[in-house]
Amino acid sequence: MTTVLDRSVVERLVREALRMPPSNGHAPFTLRDIPTKLVVNVSARHCHVTQSDLERLFGPGHKLTPYKQLYQDGFFAAEETVTFIGPRHRMINNLRILGPCRDHNQVELAFSDAIMLGLDCPVRKSGDHRDSPGAYLLGPVGMIRMERGVIRHERHVHMGPADAAEYGVKDGDRLHLRIKSACSAVFEDLLVRLAPASKLEVHLDTDEGNACNLARATKLELFSQGP
Amino acid sequence: MTTVLDRSVVERLVREALRMPPSNGHAPFTLRDIPTKLVVNVSARHCHVTQSDLERLFGPGHKLTPYKQLYQDGFFAAEETVTFIGPRHRMINNLRILGPCRDHNQVELAFSDAIMLGLDCPVRKSGDHRDSPGAYLLGPVGMIRMERGVIRHERHVHMGPADAAEYGVKDGDRLHLRIKSACSAVFEDLLVRLAPASKLEVHLDTDEGNACNLARATKLELFSQGP
Repeated sequence: MTTVLDRSVVERLVREALRMPPSNGHAPFTLRDIPTKLVVNVSARHCHVTQSDLERLFGPGHKLTPYKQLYQDGFFAAEETVTFIGPRHRMINNLRILGPCRDHNQVELAFSDAIMLGLDCPVRKSGDHRDSPGAYLLGPVGMIRMERGVIRHERHVHMGPADAAEYGVKDGDRLHLRIKSACSAVFEDLLVRLAPASKLEVHLDTDEGNACNLARATKLELFSQGP
Repeated sequence: MTTVLDRSVVERLVREALRMPPSNGHAPFTLRDIPTKLVVNVSARHCHVTQSDLERLFGPGHKLTPYKQLYQDGFFAAEETVTFIGPRHRMINNLRILGPCRDHNQVELAFSDAIMLGLDCPVRKSGDHRDSPGAYLLGPVGMIRMERGVIRHERHVHMGPADAAEYGVKDGDRLHLRIKSACSAVFEDLLVRLAPASKLEVHLDTDEGNACNLARATKLELFSQGP
């Protein structure tokens, strides 16, 4: 699900009409100028696996086959899916692998998924598996056991250096996201993930997207809260 | 799921320590004094039926049997459940009826439920069924057809006259709810539902509760946004 709204032109016209200065980030809940189209995407549950575990699941020498390119260049949803087996033997079929392969295995679930599975998932950024439960992943050739790494991925915003300069943030900072709809919400404290090649994109999970009806959003605002 | 936090004592002490005046509701995002314990409950999917349709579903003369009392006096989850059959013949088993019976049938789903069923549910307050889809409800004795009335119930806060006076609101006004947790969120524009016998209680749905991890909330704030 992708929702794209280009606010920059409208906002510039309004600011000019009202003779407002550009926001300086120090007023409470000031809306920043959005430098480009703000893209907010929902990440449905998925997993990441290492190349060696991919081969345990799908056979020696197996390589992921891209099924759909993601918004960030070089990343894709793979054709390959696995069966997730939780501690109470509850399962999720067709858990999609995202590529390319990583140096660690990780399963990212929404709380709705975790509750259905009987799992207590912590909210974590990628790679932080403290106090997270494990699971079994089953492929057509074999099964792997993850000791830990089943998390709810912390909501975050990818951006490149130019976006970071526009928002006045650095890697690891926090921004808030307001989604206006028939059930508006502000998701607070999105983690800023700055990388040279990243495009500006917010990642929410399915619970968050459904809570605010992102698919029918009329307005998206990414902003910082002043002191 | 019930989360109860009594902030009033803490807030009064902080206000006294800082010599802040009581909030007057005119500052932006001012936190109001919370007059009593703020209760925030998640309403899982459920339905309401008329007495005559209850009898079509469960047999002539059938009366609802209370299974669990709800927080609002006189309301209960019933022993009786029905099977919900949507337009694509996708189903929900064990959809619980809430009592007492009403003068209209209504099914309240979270968007996650609606998406699974292939339904396009509008966000509506109770009894407002404009542009809402219908469904079949199946009981042990019979089936009823709802022409419409499958909605996502608009988030709302029940309160009595004393609460309304404390918050400075009237029936139909709007308040915002901030839930602090590892994934904090502000749900905006909760509908105020004032009734003489109501107790102060916010109702969210499961998507909203999961989006902000209500079960592990550390702080709940109900507030109005100033001009």
